[in-house]
Amino acid sequence: MAEKAAKRECSSPKETSTPKKAKKLNEDGGCFLKPGGDVLASLKTLEILSESAEEKKIIVHGQLEGNDAVVVLEKNPFSKDTLEELFTSSTLKFDMENNIYSSYSLQVPLHLNEIKTTVIYPATEEHLKKYRSHQSFLVEETGDDYQSITLPYIQSRTFSIQWVYNILEKKAEAERIVYEDPDPKVGFTLLPDLKWDQKRVVNLYLIAIVHQRGIKSLRDLTEEHLPLLQNILKKGKEAIRTHYQLPASKLRIYLHYQPSYYHLHVHFTNLKYRAPGCGLERAHFLSDVIQNLQSDGQYYKTRTLSFQLHEGNGLLCKFKEAGRLEFR
Amino acid sequence: MAEKAAKRECSSPKETSTPKKAKKLNEDGGCFLKPGGDVLASLKTLEILSESAEEKKIIVHGQLEGNDAVVVLEKNPFSKDTLEELFTSSTLKFDMENNIYSSYSLQVPLHLNEIKTTVIYPATEEHLKKYRSHQSFLVEETGDDYQSITLPYIQSRTFSIQWVYNILEKKAEAERIVYEDPDPKVGFTLLPDLKWDQKRVVNLYLIAIVHQRGIKSLRDLTEEHLPLLQNILKKGKEAIRTHYQLPASKLRIYLHYQPSYYHLHVHFTNLKYRAPGCGLERAHFLSDVIQNLQSDGQYYKTRTLSFQLHEGNGLLCKFKEAGRLEFR
Repeated sequence: MAEKAAKRECSSPKETSTPKKAKKLNEDGGCFLKPGGDVLASLKTLEILSESAEEKKIIVHGQLEGNDAVVVLEKNPFSKDTLEELFTSSTLKFDMENNIYSSYSLQVPLHLNEIKTTVIYPATEEHLKKYRSHQSFLVEETGDDYQSITLPYIQSRTFSIQWVYNILEKKAEAERIVYEDPDPKVGFTLLPDLKWDQKRVVNLYLIAIVHQRGIKSLRDLTEEHLPLLQNILKKGKEAIRTHYQLPASKLRIYLHYQPSYYHLHVHFTNLKYRAPGCGLERAHFLSDVIQNLQSDGQYYKTRTLSFQLHEGNGLLCKFKEAGRLEFR
Repeated sequence: MAEKAAKRECSSPKETSTPKKAKKLNEDGGCFLKPGGDVLASLKTLEILSESAEEKKIIVHGQLEGNDAVVVLEKNPFSKDTLEELFTSSTLKFDMENNIYSSYSLQVPLHLNEIKTTVIYPATEEHLKKYRSHQSFLVEETGDDYQSITLPYIQSRTFSIQWVYNILEKKAEAERIVYEDPDPKVGFTLLPDLKWDQKRVVNLYLIAIVHQRGIKSLRDLTEEHLPLLQNILKKGKEAIRTHYQLPASKLRIYLHYQPSYYHLHVHFTNLKYRAPGCGLERAHFLSDVIQNLQSDGQYYKTRTLSFQLHEGNGLLCKFKEAGRLEFR
């Protein structure tokens, strides 16, 4: 702790008072350091907000000068371009061997193995809440639950979907539209999801937003919507084949329930890409929805639908209050 | 290349002829190196078999002395125990800032940022095939396709499920059984999946294997199996609550289609754990299967079921041969 205090004393008074703004040249190279550059050494760690062994990521809540900070550390993916250098300039420590298999720990030159670090400072309670890993629960919503719990909840909230109307009316994001069928009954607008950087087809992610208003979700669909759904399935596949040379057999085409906004939309993702929200606890194949409505027009009005909600979610609270969630 | 050749010449003749067996002490510490210790520096890289930016993993096909080798590199997860040391002894390089957000590249002491390395040497064509990333396709199997393509394929293969019978008859893994209902008609054996290390509930993964023989998959289920399915759902939940204090609302309970072996079994995983095979292209909630069979006993005989198959899969070849896969 003495070492940390000493480091902080080295900062000029100005830097100490506005640590986020001032920058200075790093002694050992052309890169910039913020003061700031000692932000991690000065950090008083309070808790691990979340961590992922799979993604090699950890998110820490700490304090800097008495203010909250969130620090996100994530290891970088391997780069093919530096693999040769990595192979020739690293040190291998033997761990074990068994027949044709042997394992090692590899120590790699610093510049080939950096860690992406993001600091949010000062952080608010909202940031901490956002990054803290939550408990999650599987809710089993019957048709009655939808009427008595979910629908009143949706209606009570002012989920603004003006941004959706802006897209449909070409008041925003018009240049991003990949395909449009303007028909007011069965038409839709297809555009890249904001999560997709559009650089590589491997993580292709597009959204088809229907022109028809008032269809909130899967729960509102009946046999009368079959022409709409079939139109999206057919023309969405065709548009993606035309624009991205990706055949339908390499696509995952699905709806979310619960959706993140209550205006009907369909997700198109590359089958190879394990997109967030493509687990069975949220995603429903459009082709299954069509089949189910073909044999029973009331399928989505009457079935129990299971979905995952995180602690702190307003709808989850409503299910808890109604005694519809098993906590034991 | 000259440098690599020189390194290899330093080995004694014996070591050169049997490089896998000999070991020697590393000069700069107490750990052992295999010769072998220069295995990566000597590697002639031929191709990247697969890589995952999400998991920070890369798998390389290379050659050592003319023999094939597979090298798997994967960055290690963060350890909470060394986080303090990492914070105080690393160097932060400033990248950018925007309002309260700033990002950096962090250079970390070698021993805190090692890479797990696995070498398979000599590797066979089978190893290369196993690790090479495959194209995958979504197959839409109609009820007729099942009868004319899938069922004959399953029957033509000698998928041995003796290991399943060994478990049910307690000839193997008896000590691993978590719960058993011995009833021959509706009973099942519940035990940890081999993928689960049983150390942490966060990635809990159990399998319920039915005692009744001859039910190959979802496709064989009709309304007559409802008592069996309901029994698994009810008693499986209870057993997991008893043994692991995990309530049903934190479980994902599902069947795979296609399954990896054709004897009916049900997966129980922690909802928090994004288990392999829990995407909508393979997983079906047991509760949905029960509902669907309750309203239509022939549901799984007649519906088109969509699932993902990888290139090289025998069943995928059959669908291709039958002209049932769209490649355009």
